[in-house]
Amino acid sequence: MSRPLEAPLAVSLGDPAGIGPEVIAKCWDNRSALNLPPFVAIGDLRSISAVWDGPIEVVESPRDADAAFDHGLPLIQIAAQQADVPGHPSPSGAHCSLDSLEIAVGLARSGSASAVVTGPVAKEQLYAIGFQHPGQTEFVAERCGISPGNVVMMLAGPTLRTVPVTTHVALADVPARLNSALIESRGRATLRGLQRNFGIPNPRLAVTGLNPHSGEGGALGREEIELIEPAIAALAAEGWTVTGPHPADTMFHTRARANYDAALCMYHDQALIPIKALHFEEAVNVTLGLPIVRTAPDHGTAFDIAGQDRADPRPMAAALHMAAQCAAQRSEAA
Amino acid sequence: MSRPLEAPLAVSLGDPAGIGPEVIAKCWDNRSALNLPPFVAIGDLRSISAVWDGPIEVVESPRDADAAFDHGLPLIQIAAQQADVPGHPSPSGAHCSLDSLEIAVGLARSGSASAVVTGPVAKEQLYAIGFQHPGQTEFVAERCGISPGNVVMMLAGPTLRTVPVTTHVALADVPARLNSALIESRGRATLRGLQRNFGIPNPRLAVTGLNPHSGEGGALGREEIELIEPAIAALAAEGWTVTGPHPADTMFHTRARANYDAALCMYHDQALIPIKALHFEEAVNVTLGLPIVRTAPDHGTAFDIAGQDRADPRPMAAALHMAAQCAAQRSEAA
Repeated sequence: MSRPLEAPLAVSLGDPAGIGPEVIAKCWDNRSALNLPPFVAIGDLRSISAVWDGPIEVVESPRDADAAFDHGLPLIQIAAQQADVPGHPSPSGAHCSLDSLEIAVGLARSGSASAVVTGPVAKEQLYAIGFQHPGQTEFVAERCGISPGNVVMMLAGPTLRTVPVTTHVALADVPARLNSALIESRGRATLRGLQRNFGIPNPRLAVTGLNPHSGEGGALGREEIELIEPAIAALAAEGWTVTGPHPADTMFHTRARANYDAALCMYHDQALIPIKALHFEEAVNVTLGLPIVRTAPDHGTAFDIAGQDRADPRPMAAALHMAAQCAAQRSEAA
Repeated sequence: MSRPLEAPLAVSLGDPAGIGPEVIAKCWDNRSALNLPPFVAIGDLRSISAVWDGPIEVVESPRDADAAFDHGLPLIQIAAQQADVPGHPSPSGAHCSLDSLEIAVGLARSGSASAVVTGPVAKEQLYAIGFQHPGQTEFVAERCGISPGNVVMMLAGPTLRTVPVTTHVALADVPARLNSALIESRGRATLRGLQRNFGIPNPRLAVTGLNPHSGEGGALGREEIELIEPAIAALAAEGWTVTGPHPADTMFHTRARANYDAALCMYHDQALIPIKALHFEEAVNVTLGLPIVRTAPDHGTAFDIAGQDRADPRPMAAALHMAAQCAAQRSEAA
């Protein structure tokens, strides 16, 4: 933690039947040991009290959360139509998770909260109540007036940051989805995010190849030559420090990781395999390209273990830490 | 080291202009600290003396290597037509590397050597002199009377073993190369290899999905349903312990790795990214499905640093250790 934040973090609880309420409560329980900054939860009080018997301090606004934080988990109450049983999601819970997200984003937009940390939601439940966005990231982007195409998902851990160019796409469709303009815009958004969120004035981006051995000069695929190299050249021409395309399998060991600030990867597993192999409990999802700071723990609702006191709060703690660091960084730069 | 081997390991030096001679010499230098079993190098004496001024004991057969090992690096001499300069490969060096490999395999086949460890060769040089195999693995298979389709490349490190179903294939071609019969045969060879080489009586195989999130029930690709699940079912029907298809990004963290003895992966980078991220200096290439034990360090000739005393001997040391362990395991079982 560099210095105290001017306002607490706003944390949407996510689906009330998922593990979001439990991990937030455990974070508050361990706030001293984990050295967590003040935060205010946003969601249904009953979803927390169903899984935790610690003190909850209902507050009206983030302003009141700082003082309350020492005595209980500060909560801005969003009552769901019904109290869900942990592990059993419902349309009412989906509405509640969406309202929590909306308010958390609004608080960060207005400056009342330093950043937004989003708990896990159930996409199927959201789609069933008419949610039109692929996920929370796109919703947050739209509420911030940013085209979802201009925001970027980064996975960040203590010694590695990765960004996938394509995300939830069948592997067979990845080559057709790649093009130089997309690689270039994802690269630029990543480099700007490294400056704004992480305070790196001259960020270094390493770009993976798509194919084994980065295509071996065209023998194992031509995407490196036709798509990736031109994108790297375009970014370099703007003055950015960009290297690659590198063979993906030799980019993620300790010495290699020291050579760049983020790795731009061509597809989901290429980005997520190394970050989760190295930093499973500490990897944080950071959305770059927004006017606000938004992070999220990199796990889902985990309905199968909800309400059993088995959820690990470390990913949420890591998301809180990173939100605070990015917010402090932006406030210093402002 | 479980117990002394009955015969030394046979190590082909690989290309005389590459880093093979240097890393073998460094292994001999550090044989005590690294607790290495006796080995005999096979190749051109001049390729070692060009990069190392330690003692070399030229021997006629592996039988003499045990006694010589305390005094110098035992070497079965295969003179190249010319002495290559480190970093500058030649057709003469390629012939020498091939002769060394041939003799090393023959010694292991006859039982005079406990196992073969192969140094790195230059494929382009080998192709130029008429070498017909994709790599050393296929050559070794053929010399052992095994169809190359029935041997499997495993990457093995201290806490992870991975096997790619497809290897040097452009990413766009991977889905078309996959079929249930191939996945099944690679899986079976891996399971048998875990029994024979690693002494695991009831090995557990975890199989990755091809697509992000293992296809999400078909929403992100159908290869899991159409190709991978049937292969898993067929192996399970034979009594093997096989799980999956698992999302590849959540298979390689510490807790997940405890659930299986090897991961069967669908393509090159899916197998090699995690092993090299976690075990870059210790990952060993082990060929499964052969009548002999064969391992190799997982690096190339590195002509760019040859002769500069910069090569790291740890991968070769790891390959020697693993060869000895696998050979001891097979000899115990025999």
